[in-house]
Amino acid sequence: MATRELGMQRLSLTSLNGPAEVSVTLGLDFSMPHESYGKCFWECARRAVADKACAMLGVSRNIGQKLFAGFVPPTSEGGMRYLEGDRFIGCRVEMALEKGRTRTVDRACILLADRERNENEKETWERGTTLLAAAARRSFDQVHRDNVRYWRSVWDASDILIEGDPEAQQGIRFCIFQLHQTCRGIMDGSNVGAKGLTGEAYNGHVFWDTETYCLPYYLFNNPVAAKSMLDFRHKTLPQALERARELDCAGACFPVATIDGSESCTLWQHASLQLQPTTAVAYAVVHYASVVGDPSFLHGSGVTLLVQICRFLASRAQVSPRGGYGYYGVMGPDEFHMMVNNNCYTNYMARRTFLSTLEVLDEMQRTCPDTRQEILSALGCTERELSAWGDIAAGMIIPYDPVTGLYEQHDGYFDLPHIEVDSIPAAQFPLYAHWSYDRIFRTDMIKQPDVLMLMLLCNGSFSAREKSVNYDYYDPRCIHESSLSPSVHSILASELGRQDEAFELFRFATRIDLDNYNRNTAEGLHMTSIAAAWMNIVYGFGGLRSDGAGISLDPRIPAQWTGYRFPLTWRGSVIRVEVDHARARVSLVSGPPVEIAIRRKACTVTAEGIEVRMPQPRQEREGAAGKMPQPRQEREGAAGMEASCSLPA
Amino acid sequence: MATRELGMQRLSLTSLNGPAEVSVTLGLDFSMPHESYGKCFWECARRAVADKACAMLGVSRNIGQKLFAGFVPPTSEGGMRYLEGDRFIGCRVEMALEKGRTRTVDRACILLADRERNENEKETWERGTTLLAAAARRSFDQVHRDNVRYWRSVWDASDILIEGDPEAQQGIRFCIFQLHQTCRGIMDGSNVGAKGLTGEAYNGHVFWDTETYCLPYYLFNNPVAAKSMLDFRHKTLPQALERARELDCAGACFPVATIDGSESCTLWQHASLQLQPTTAVAYAVVHYASVVGDPSFLHGSGVTLLVQICRFLASRAQVSPRGGYGYYGVMGPDEFHMMVNNNCYTNYMARRTFLSTLEVLDEMQRTCPDTRQEILSALGCTERELSAWGDIAAGMIIPYDPVTGLYEQHDGYFDLPHIEVDSIPAAQFPLYAHWSYDRIFRTDMIKQPDVLMLMLLCNGSFSAREKSVNYDYYDPRCIHESSLSPSVHSILASELGRQDEAFELFRFATRIDLDNYNRNTAEGLHMTSIAAAWMNIVYGFGGLRSDGAGISLDPRIPAQWTGYRFPLTWRGSVIRVEVDHARARVSLVSGPPVEIAIRRKACTVTAEGIEVRMPQPRQEREGAAGKMPQPRQEREGAAGMEASCSLPA
Repeated sequence: MATRELGMQRLSLTSLNGPAEVSVTLGLDFSMPHESYGKCFWECARRAVADKACAMLGVSRNIGQKLFAGFVPPTSEGGMRYLEGDRFIGCRVEMALEKGRTRTVDRACILLADRERNENEKETWERGTTLLAAAARRSFDQVHRDNVRYWRSVWDASDILIEGDPEAQQGIRFCIFQLHQTCRGIMDGSNVGAKGLTGEAYNGHVFWDTETYCLPYYLFNNPVAAKSMLDFRHKTLPQALERARELDCAGACFPVATIDGSESCTLWQHASLQLQPTTAVAYAVVHYASVVGDPSFLHGSGVTLLVQICRFLASRAQVSPRGGYGYYGVMGPDEFHMMVNNNCYTNYMARRTFLSTLEVLDEMQRTCPDTRQEILSALGCTERELSAWGDIAAGMIIPYDPVTGLYEQHDGYFDLPHIEVDSIPAAQFPLYAHWSYDRIFRTDMIKQPDVLMLMLLCNGSFSAREKSVNYDYYDPRCIHESSLSPSVHSILASELGRQDEAFELFRFATRIDLDNYNRNTAEGLHMTSIAAAWMNIVYGFGGLRSDGAGISLDPRIPAQWTGYRFPLTWRGSVIRVEVDHARARVSLVSGPPVEIAIRRKACTVTAEGIEVRMPQPRQEREGAAGKMPQPRQEREGAAGMEASCSLPA
Repeated sequence: MATRELGMQRLSLTSLNGPAEVSVTLGLDFSMPHESYGKCFWECARRAVADKACAMLGVSRNIGQKLFAGFVPPTSEGGMRYLEGDRFIGCRVEMALEKGRTRTVDRACILLADRERNENEKETWERGTTLLAAAARRSFDQVHRDNVRYWRSVWDASDILIEGDPEAQQGIRFCIFQLHQTCRGIMDGSNVGAKGLTGEAYNGHVFWDTETYCLPYYLFNNPVAAKSMLDFRHKTLPQALERARELDCAGACFPVATIDGSESCTLWQHASLQLQPTTAVAYAVVHYASVVGDPSFLHGSGVTLLVQICRFLASRAQVSPRGGYGYYGVMGPDEFHMMVNNNCYTNYMARRTFLSTLEVLDEMQRTCPDTRQEILSALGCTERELSAWGDIAAGMIIPYDPVTGLYEQHDGYFDLPHIEVDSIPAAQFPLYAHWSYDRIFRTDMIKQPDVLMLMLLCNGSFSAREKSVNYDYYDPRCIHESSLSPSVHSILASELGRQDEAFELFRFATRIDLDNYNRNTAEGLHMTSIAAAWMNIVYGFGGLRSDGAGISLDPRIPAQWTGYRFPLTWRGSVIRVEVDHARARVSLVSGPPVEIAIRRKACTVTAEGIEVRMPQPRQEREGAAGKMPQPRQEREGAAGMEASCSLPA
C-alpha cells in the first residue's frame, strides 16, 4: 500500500514426507480473455526477459490503455529457465526440497498503468523499469513491514469492533479492508466500480449508487477518497452536459452506469428515465461539504455541479394540469416501476437539490460574493434562473396523504394490484430471471426501497410517525431483489426501535462475498453492498445521521451483541463511539472538540467523553419477527437489471 | 389475375426521328440484395436457358423458400443472344427500328412459389416449367382479354364513384386496385403485409392492425379474402399460444408484427404491452360472422380463437385494490403512452371480447349444443371458466367521468402535463426522429386515436354526446403521427356533422402513395392506410356502421363533391349506395333483399331502392375549421415505431 504499483509475492514450500523436486513457474500473462466479451483485449507493445527484470507493456485494443507489468525474477540455486509465449513471459525455477525444510520463492511485481494516456510507450516503459529496479533493491520483509504499518493506521482510523458476534466482526473487517483497498484517494477523480477492482462483471462500470451507498463510509473515514469520488463527477461534467442534450434537456444529467462519464447503460428505460443518478451527485456534494467541511470544493467544483444539475432538473420538470411541478415518465430507485409520474423520491430529491443549491449560493453571497458571481457568470446563470428554481421547488408535487401519513411512491401506486410477496415460490427468485420482463412492473411489489430510501437520505425531514407508517406499508411490499436493499430497511427498523427486525435484515449484510451468498463472488465483489454493510452498522445500530447541518447519534444495540465500537472522522476530528447494553459512550480521539447531537441533545464531545444510558429493549410489535426477507441465496443473483445495464449494445 | 403465376410484359418501341438499332435485355435476376439487410438471400438451385424457356429456381438462404421464375424468350427477326451471370439469366434481342414504325417485344413470365415448402426442388421446377409451357401457347392479347374481364367483375363489385373530385376519384380507385391485388382470397390463410407485396420495408411483416383497418374492405367486397385473413390467425394459433406462455399467461396472445405467426416485433414495450393485437382478432371474428354470416367458421375456428383469446385476457387481467378488474402495464393503440394502467380501449375491448364470446357460446348452446360441447371439451374449457370470464367482464374498470362524459385514456391521463401540439415546430416532426425517445411519453399528446378508435370500433355503444365531447377533447391532442390516424377522426367528424373538418382530415387519405406524401413510397405501399381510405369514405361519408347485429347507413356528403356511389356485399347480397346533395339512395343490385337501418330507421332494401333526403348543411362549430392536421408531408415518415418494430434484433 505504501508503493501503490508494487506487489510482493511469497511462495513457501515445505515437503512433508520426503525429498522432492519442485518446479515453480512465475509469469506475466496478457492473454487472459475478458469474461463478458470472451476475447482478449491486450496487445503486447514491448517485452524484456532478463535476470534483472521480466517485463511487458500491454496496450488495450479498444482505448489504447497502456499497462506496464514486470517482476524481478527470484535468484535460485537450482536451475532457472526463461519462458516466452504469445503475450506471456515468465521463468521456471527448479528446486530440490528436503523433508521438513521450507524454501521460499519471493518476487516483487510492478503494475503501472498510464491512466491518463498522455505518455508514449517508451515513457511508460521507462517509468515501469525504474520502479522495478527500485523494487529489486527492497526485501520482502522490508516491504511487508511498511505495509503492516500502513494498515495499522487504517485500522486505527476505521476499524469497527463487534463483541459477541465473530461472524459479523470478521465480515465488517472484510468490508472495511475492501473499501479501503478499492479507493483510498491516491488517484484524483476516481470512483468506485460496482465490482471494485476485483472482477470483470459490469465491465468496470461505476454505477449511480456509489454516492448514495459508498460515499458515507469514505466521508467518515477517508475524506480524501471521498473527494476523489466527487472529483470524478466534476471531471466527467462535460459528458453529463452532453447526455442532458441528448435527452433534449439543459444542464447535466449523470449516468446510471459509466466508465468515462458517458452513459454506458444500454437500457433506455433506466438510462433515460432514472433521475436519481443526477440528484445523488447533488446530494453527495452537499453531504461532503457538510461532513468534511471543505468550502474550497463547495465553492468551486461543488457549486458548478449543483448549478448544472439544477438546470437539468428544471428543464426536465413539467407543469401538472392540477398545478405544481413534477417529473413525468420516470423510474425511481425502485426498478419494478417505470414510466411513472411524480415518483415521490424523484420529486422530493429534486426539490431538495434546488433548495440546497440556493442555500449554498446564499451562503456564498455572504461569505464569498465575488466567487459566487464569477461562477454564475461563467455558467451564464442569472438571478432569474435561480428564482425559477425556487418556484419549481416551492411548487413541487409531493404525493402525500396527510391523513395516513403515507407518501405514495408515485401517482397511482396505491391503486396498483396487490401481490403477497410471500406467495411467490422461492424458485421464482430472482424474478428478472424467471418472470416475463413486463410482468414485474404491474403490481405494488417493489424491488428495493424507494420512499424508504428517501426517508433514510432525508431522515431529518420526516417525522417519527411518518417513518413508522411508511415502513409498515412499504416493507411488506419490498422483495429486496437488490443486495443493497435490506440494509436500508434495517437502518430504519433500528431507528423505529425494532431491533430484532433490524438485526434480521442486517444478518447477511457483512458477508455477502465472504460467504458467497449470491453464488457470484467469482465475478467480483459487491462493492456497494459492502459499503451498505458499514452504513447498516453505523447509521443503523449507531444511529448516525448526517443529512442535516451537523451530525447526530442515537445508538442502539442488537440483543445478539455484547458491544461494539466505531470511529468517525468529522471535519478533521476523530471521535469514537462505544456501545454496550448499559451505555453508549462518545469520546474524542483526536482533533478539536466536536459538536454533536446525541439522542437529540446537543453535546460537545471531548477526550473525556459523553456517556448516555441505553434504553430498555422494547417489546417487538406483534408479528413483526415473522416478517423477514427470504434468504438472500434464493432471492438474489447476477441476473438482475444492474447486470443487463452493463452489457454493451 | 386469371392465372395467378402468369405475368405478361409488352415493350413497345417507336423511333420518332429516324432509323435506330435497339437492343433489349430481358432477364431474371436473383441477385437483388434485400434492402434492409443489404445482402442477397437467394441461391440458385436450378437454371435453364433455351429457346423455349429461360428459367431459374431460387431457394432462399434463411428458410429454404423455393421460387421458380421463368419466361418465354420472344421470337426475334434480328439477332438474339442468351446471357448468364451469377444468379442472372436472360437474353438480348437486337432489332432495327425504322422511323415511325412500332415494334413490340412481348414476354410471358411465370413466378411460382412453393409457399408451404412441402415440395422438393424437382417438383417445383416441373410445376414451373409446365406453367411456362402453357404460357407459351397463349398470346399477349388473349391473356390481356382475360385480365380485362377479371378486373371488370372486380370493379363491378367494388368500384367507388366520386363526382366532382377527380383526385379523390383516382386515389380511391388506386386504393381499391391495390387492396384487391394484394389479397383476393386465392391463398388460404394469407394476411396483408404492411407493404402488401410491393416493398421490402417492414420485411414483409403483417401488423396487428390489418384486422382493424383492412378487414372491413374485404368483408364488404370480398368475403373469401376476408376469411383468408382470419384463417391466417387460426393457422398461427399455436404460435399465439406459445407467445402467451412466454408472457406467463394462458391462452393465445397475437403478435404486433409477424410473418409466420410468431412475434417479430423486437421492442418489448410494444410486443409485450400491447393487447390490442389480440382483441383485434376477436373483434374480427365477430365482425366477419356478422357481416358475412358464415356460421361454419364462427362455430369452428372462430369460437376456438375466441376461447383462447378470452383465456389470455383472463390470465392477464388483475384485480384493482379499489375493486374491479383491469389491465396494468399496457400500451394502448396510442403509442405515445406506455406502461399505463387501465387503458380505456384495452379494458373496454377486453370486456367486449368476453361478452361476445359468451354470446357466441350461448347462441351455439341454442343452435348446435353438440358442436359447442365438443369444442369446449377439446379446449379443456369448463363452464366455470366461462363464468369467470363473465365476472371479469362485469367487473371491468372503464375509466369514465359521467359528469363530463369523458372517457379517460388511462389512469392518470387527465393529470398529464398538457402540450399545445400546434406549438411544436414543424421541423420536429416526425417526433420519433427528432425527440429523445423518452420525451414523447410524458404529456397528454397522443400519436393516434385511442379512445376515439374505441368509439369507432364500438360505435353503437356510445351516445352522440359521448362521441362529441370525447372528440372535442382528444382531437386537439392527437398529432396523427400514423398514416391511419386522420381517417378515424374524419369518420367521427362526419358522424358528428362536422363535414368541413371531416373532409379536411380525409383530404390526403386516398393518395398517400400516389402522391408520395411521406416520401417513402419506394419502400412499398402503405396498405393499412390505403384500406383506411376506403373506410374513410364508406364509414365516414357513407355512415356505414357494422359493429352491431346488422348494418346501418347515415350518408353525408362533403361540400366539395357533387355525388358519390359505392357498393356493399352483405351476406351474399350486393347493395348500392348513391349519394348527392339532395338525396341518398340505397338499392339492391343482386341477391335477396337486405334488412338495414338507414338514418336509424329499419328498412328492407330491394331492387326498387330506398331514398332519403339529405340534411341541410349545418353551420360548422365556431373555430373548428381552424383546427386541422399539419400537412402529412411534415408530420410523417418512415422513422416511426412501426419501422423499428420490423427491425431484427
